[in-house]
Amino acid sequence: MSSDRPATPLLDTLQSPADLKRLSDPQLRQVADELRAETISAVSETGGHLGAGLGVVELTVAIHAVFNTPRDRLVWDVSHQCYPHKILTGRRDRIRTLRQKDGLSGFTKRSESPYDPFGAAHSSTSISAALGFKVAHDLGGTPDPALGDAIAVIGDGSMSAGMAFEAMNNAGHLGKRLFVVLNDNEMSIAPPTGALSSYLSRLYAEAPLHDLKAAAKGALSLLPPPLQDAAHRAKDMLKHSVLGGTMFEELGFNYVGPIDGHDMEQLLAVMRIVHQRAQKPTLIHVITKKGKGYRPAELAADKGHATAKFDVLTGKQKKAPSNAPSYTKVFAEALIKAGEVDDKIVAVTAAMPDGTGLNLFAERFPERCFDVGIAEQHGVTFCGAMAAGGLKPFCTMYSTFLQRGYDQVVHDVALQGLPVRFAIDRAGLVGADGATHAGSFDIGFMTNLPGMVVMAAADEAELVHMVATAAAYDDGPSAFRFPRGEGEGVEMPERGIPLEIGKGRMIQEGARVAILSFGTRLGEVMKASEALRARGITPTVADARFAKPLDRDLILQLAADHEALITIEEGAVGGFGSHVAQLLAEEGVFDSGLKYRSMVLPDSFIDQANPADMYAAAGLNAPDIEAKVLEVLGLGHVGAKRA
Amino acid sequence: MSSDRPATPLLDTLQSPADLKRLSDPQLRQVADELRAETISAVSETGGHLGAGLGVVELTVAIHAVFNTPRDRLVWDVSHQCYPHKILTGRRDRIRTLRQKDGLSGFTKRSESPYDPFGAAHSSTSISAALGFKVAHDLGGTPDPALGDAIAVIGDGSMSAGMAFEAMNNAGHLGKRLFVVLNDNEMSIAPPTGALSSYLSRLYAEAPLHDLKAAAKGALSLLPPPLQDAAHRAKDMLKHSVLGGTMFEELGFNYVGPIDGHDMEQLLAVMRIVHQRAQKPTLIHVITKKGKGYRPAELAADKGHATAKFDVLTGKQKKAPSNAPSYTKVFAEALIKAGEVDDKIVAVTAAMPDGTGLNLFAERFPERCFDVGIAEQHGVTFCGAMAAGGLKPFCTMYSTFLQRGYDQVVHDVALQGLPVRFAIDRAGLVGADGATHAGSFDIGFMTNLPGMVVMAAADEAELVHMVATAAAYDDGPSAFRFPRGEGEGVEMPERGIPLEIGKGRMIQEGARVAILSFGTRLGEVMKASEALRARGITPTVADARFAKPLDRDLILQLAADHEALITIEEGAVGGFGSHVAQLLAEEGVFDSGLKYRSMVLPDSFIDQANPADMYAAAGLNAPDIEAKVLEVLGLGHVGAKRA
Repeated sequence: MSSDRPATPLLDTLQSPADLKRLSDPQLRQVADELRAETISAVSETGGHLGAGLGVVELTVAIHAVFNTPRDRLVWDVSHQCYPHKILTGRRDRIRTLRQKDGLSGFTKRSESPYDPFGAAHSSTSISAALGFKVAHDLGGTPDPALGDAIAVIGDGSMSAGMAFEAMNNAGHLGKRLFVVLNDNEMSIAPPTGALSSYLSRLYAEAPLHDLKAAAKGALSLLPPPLQDAAHRAKDMLKHSVLGGTMFEELGFNYVGPIDGHDMEQLLAVMRIVHQRAQKPTLIHVITKKGKGYRPAELAADKGHATAKFDVLTGKQKKAPSNAPSYTKVFAEALIKAGEVDDKIVAVTAAMPDGTGLNLFAERFPERCFDVGIAEQHGVTFCGAMAAGGLKPFCTMYSTFLQRGYDQVVHDVALQGLPVRFAIDRAGLVGADGATHAGSFDIGFMTNLPGMVVMAAADEAELVHMVATAAAYDDGPSAFRFPRGEGEGVEMPERGIPLEIGKGRMIQEGARVAILSFGTRLGEVMKASEALRARGITPTVADARFAKPLDRDLILQLAADHEALITIEEGAVGGFGSHVAQLLAEEGVFDSGLKYRSMVLPDSFIDQANPADMYAAAGLNAPDIEAKVLEVLGLGHVGAKRA
Repeated sequence: MSSDRPATPLLDTLQSPADLKRLSDPQLRQVADELRAETISAVSETGGHLGAGLGVVELTVAIHAVFNTPRDRLVWDVSHQCYPHKILTGRRDRIRTLRQKDGLSGFTKRSESPYDPFGAAHSSTSISAALGFKVAHDLGGTPDPALGDAIAVIGDGSMSAGMAFEAMNNAGHLGKRLFVVLNDNEMSIAPPTGALSSYLSRLYAEAPLHDLKAAAKGALSLLPPPLQDAAHRAKDMLKHSVLGGTMFEELGFNYVGPIDGHDMEQLLAVMRIVHQRAQKPTLIHVITKKGKGYRPAELAADKGHATAKFDVLTGKQKKAPSNAPSYTKVFAEALIKAGEVDDKIVAVTAAMPDGTGLNLFAERFPERCFDVGIAEQHGVTFCGAMAAGGLKPFCTMYSTFLQRGYDQVVHDVALQGLPVRFAIDRAGLVGADGATHAGSFDIGFMTNLPGMVVMAAADEAELVHMVATAAAYDDGPSAFRFPRGEGEGVEMPERGIPLEIGKGRMIQEGARVAILSFGTRLGEVMKASEALRARGITPTVADARFAKPLDRDLILQLAADHEALITIEEGAVGGFGSHVAQLLAEEGVFDSGLKYRSMVLPDSFIDQANPADMYAAAGLNAPDIEAKVLEVLGLGHVGAKRA
């Protein structure tokens, strides 16, 4: 280790969570302090999610010290707070490879460790998962390691998603011993929104933490009578929380809390009591501070949610200078411009105002921007009705999270032909967040819906035009997708001009082979074209712009004029290329032969790396395109894979 | 009207809901009685959802009498309870065409009436929709008719879905005047499950309805002080409900209730008070009886949920005798057999135990069957964790409802390679339930997931084998789909035999053209084959069995041996045919020409009719297949469409 790493003498002695059992409570406090320092040090080198992990350092130590992982299944919701957990569970030696190619995932991952019994990255799955483990335990499931208790740790933001409510409802009904730790930091990624959040705030506003040193109401009620007497002095304090916990109690849970999540003594006491006594579902309400113990994170607006590499002393992030604006920012600015001339434009985000750029739209039009919380299902249908009510809603979600609202896209929007505009960010492979965040499937699951217009931007200027197109198109639902990260650095139009629906554009006239691109692979296509030129081949290149409706004339003309036609897209099979193939088949183009190929994401989940490396793994970079052209023209497999 | 129709003198005078405003309260009571009789009479002729509508007759009259529809947007959740609403809103003349081809939809439908501002059929969307209308109103949306208030009517079962919670959370946060009528009949389709349901039961167990004649707590609190005094005598009764409503109050709603949903006087009083006074989101908790007022429905286990045509006097249903067991029943029996030899098999349904046949599995193995409520998201992930815990979960859902859990299929199951078995019922077009219930997209959205095995049964014997295959296959997730309705009447195997993964089967060796079928279109393919034989053409016919992994050898052999290859499936483009086309393209089969066609569902939503008529509209019946073969072989377009 380098000399500027923190001293962690006690942490250095730990091989596994079992070693925590031999430590005294003050030593566990020390482990927590060292674990915090180690987490800060590691993330300063790798970048990643910092604030969430710092908020649960004590909780991580307390759970591992009291429960028996990995036999007891500990499920971290979202799991971007799992870095301290990874350090404690045998992965300290690789913690400085976090989120890097061939390194540790930034989330829990089953293939990585038996201490990660259920991977996560999308929110609000942990209670369902913990309940599944508990039922498997009771029914004699025999995985390795054998099953014990089940514990979910879930944030207050995640608790607002319907899925968490469904799981609570089911768990309360089944009545099994199950632990849900509600990690309440009033902060998911953005400050949380919604009535549940207000409710949780009232809970601990009414029961000040400093009054609750020894234990909390629910935990006390689990004690046998004599011990209750011993804790009698806490009784007065507890009356405040009696009403507070009713929502959870009404759902069949014991409610314990709220307790101070940075007070190790209190945490250990409560965890030991519930571990020893609980017979039914038990919710432990823990109040934490995101970014706790690292001043620059505590002071940041997002509490150090996600960070680049940084200097530990100053907290200053070491970001590489960017050459072009991010697609997200381009989208946000284009939407604001559209909103300035059309007051019917409104926007919806599901708890990602910063990630989607809608924070900028909200600053400009606070009344016309809605953060519905982690609630994609509701958000989509809410947009559907606003469209039916004469507004022009932009439903702004990452591709991977739009999967959460898929039925609503089908049933409430497409089926009714309502003009909701889906702005799909993070389309395609996304880099460090890895496979869980890949936007691989939306082209397929949107293009197969009758009446849906589906666009993909080839560059940031195209994105501006697509925002204008969606704003102008009011005859039915539409969607446009764009990737994570910086644009291509192209010249930007002053203002978006609506595109003709279902029409692509020629980029370059060539011969023998035509490449029809949908989305931002166009840049790689042009690189491949340069390389091919050196071999005497000039491919025709076109940008489809639309996967639905298809530009039939363009596609049939490309097929007629060339020996070979290659489509390329940043999505799985079943999307753009499949619709092109269906058209070509129906039109009888294959009858007499066409060298047709469709380049799509491979049939595998691709682990985190930088996006270029991920696309190399996917076989969708310039060398792959070049190789595909050469292969299809019978010129051999040259330069098939990047080194 | 025929002579045995009920006398409905007052109802006969009503042209639109506005006419209710001129009636006295006793006359409104009479309208309700006549509306109930008319509903029973109509459904006795058409079949359909009876019990739900009978439960809300008084509520329907009261809402239309007090609010100003269609300006006030009334959104019925699920909307199978909307028949009385349709009768009252200008569709009485067509009410006896319910659920029939070219007739009224069995659900609300925007294209049918301005009184149906938001269509539904899947549950739990109504609060989101009502909130969207309310926001559109406040932001100056200008649809026709102009916007007024927004009212959602949602059942207690639907309230258990996460989506409803998400919407409540957002509505409570926004704090706008909005009406949510909780139609609590302790009965969604099956008796409801979950902790929320128990909670609701406690609410009215603690506040007996007969004590609450005049009005209910929340409604009183909306009154100005003098009126409150007048109602003072109710005070004692109300104390019981003070604690009861807290869950909704904690989410930012006024809670009014519980009130008797069949007491017209009480309903009208409460509706008038809230209409006049409410300033913020208001939940009106109404207790109703499903099937109310029709003895045979009240006595039925499902309270007359869905019925065939019936005799009004006896309630006896007039079902056509069936020739073969339903696919659902075959599935259930096969699963029970598998469960008898493997105690790790468990099953999950999302509030559809009868519809999925899991009621039979639950009778046999009560500890191994889980009804999670209307909670597909939770259900899928719960299955994922049970699989990780060493069990063999069958996640049993209709294709259209599996859309609700799509992200969980991707993120929790496929990405982790967990061996959850998806039993996908109601695949393809489903008949009277129409477009909202069509299982059109699952082939696409399941086959594009890495590692997912996807099967479709060609007949009920195949289904038995696929249950066995899924039970035996433990290396990753798998899915098998099968349609609604009766099987083909084939000979049934004593016991299922696991199929070889990714291998299809030859049905008939022929020449020139090969037809590769995925699913139950195989019967139509064989009919087409018979017709073609008369023209001297014997097509080769194969059953793919698997859309993933594909039977590469079979497909490439069929392509090599025939002039033409036609795939057919009961799903949209992007599914089986698209994967076949991708294979053929990659293998260079198109390079030298192949007459390839892929028969899929058309790019439109298909309205209700019987399934055969719907498949005729889709162009996927025997005459369509015959025509496709003739066309592709250059023999002309003969017999293209059924009359």
